[in-house]
Amino acid sequence: MEQKLELTIALLAHTPATLNAWLRDLPEAWTNVNEGGETFSAYGVVGHLVHGERTDWMPRVKTILEYGESRAFVPFDRFAQDRESAGKSLPQLLDEFAELRGQNLKELNALGLTEQKLNMLGRHPRLGTVTLANLLATWAAHDMTHLHQLARILAHQYRDAVGPWSVFLGVLQCNGHSAG
Amino acid sequence: MEQKLELTIALLAHTPATLNAWLRDLPEAWTNVNEGGETFSAYGVVGHLVHGERTDWMPRVKTILEYGESRAFVPFDRFAQDRESAGKSLPQLLDEFAELRGQNLKELNALGLTEQKLNMLGRHPRLGTVTLANLLATWAAHDMTHLHQLARILAHQYRDAVGPWSVFLGVLQCNGHSAG
Repeated sequence: MEQKLELTIALLAHTPATLNAWLRDLPEAWTNVNEGGETFSAYGVVGHLVHGERTDWMPRVKTILEYGESRAFVPFDRFAQDRESAGKSLPQLLDEFAELRGQNLKELNALGLTEQKLNMLGRHPRLGTVTLANLLATWAAHDMTHLHQLARILAHQYRDAVGPWSVFLGVLQCNGHSAG
Repeated sequence: MEQKLELTIALLAHTPATLNAWLRDLPEAWTNVNEGGETFSAYGVVGHLVHGERTDWMPRVKTILEYGESRAFVPFDRFAQDRESAGKSLPQLLDEFAELRGQNLKELNALGLTEQKLNMLGRHPRLGTVTLANLLATWAAHDMTHLHQLARILAHQYRDAVGPWSVFLGVLQCNGHSAG
């Protein structure tokens, strides 16, 4: 479907409560485990989303509006949460995410973006030319990538426990694809 | 990790609130769309989960406890929701799911399943011999399969809108795998 700004904002607005309902009271045996190696745990996913709210999405919106294609976005640090979440509990990170997301959507709404502004061009350091509309759709799809990943991280813990059923469970066939 | 019954129940208990936070107030432009062809919409996913609560999980638990391997499970109808959800709104289905899941977990808890009972064998019509422990782990992993699918259905709608970013978004590389 075509992107509509109000639909993008609606999806973005639902993510904090979704994560909260899914994770806040879940035992740490679920939330502190990952898919092996350097992969994210549920705790890591939330820290990553917090970092994105602080440094990625709205700063990039502003870079496009102020500088267009003349200034490339600051690259996103996909592992910043390893430093920034230090000492914070999962409930703290969930609260932080909800607050930051709320502020960012308020700010986004206040920009009163017109069709013309949504067509403005920006420059991604690796992908090249993108539009502001692409950026906003990506913000929402990035949330979905990490909810998708979250389901996969949790299911992975029962890969053996499900026994013969593993062949029927789509989430256990997912290899993670690129970033999540 | 090894399955622990209380961890399985904890994960199962979180799904209704997660779906509620994610979907209840989301515009129908998100919840009534699918990934093309006969695939599920978000609305279809919730209807499928409602059907599972009614006809699949607890009835299979009881089949194992009463009949062991001597009676195969009744096959699960993956498209029953097309009939059963007719005329129901998404909020109605979310309420129904929350109520049925709550009842089922109460009933499961009341069974006081011991390690010995969890090792009891049952017979799946296609997969053959399974344990009660396998069935319970699958119940939880099946929830994750459909949360995973839900993120993918929603992200799919912005496949074009994200522009060049599609290569970085893992959820857009997911081909759906088997059932979900």
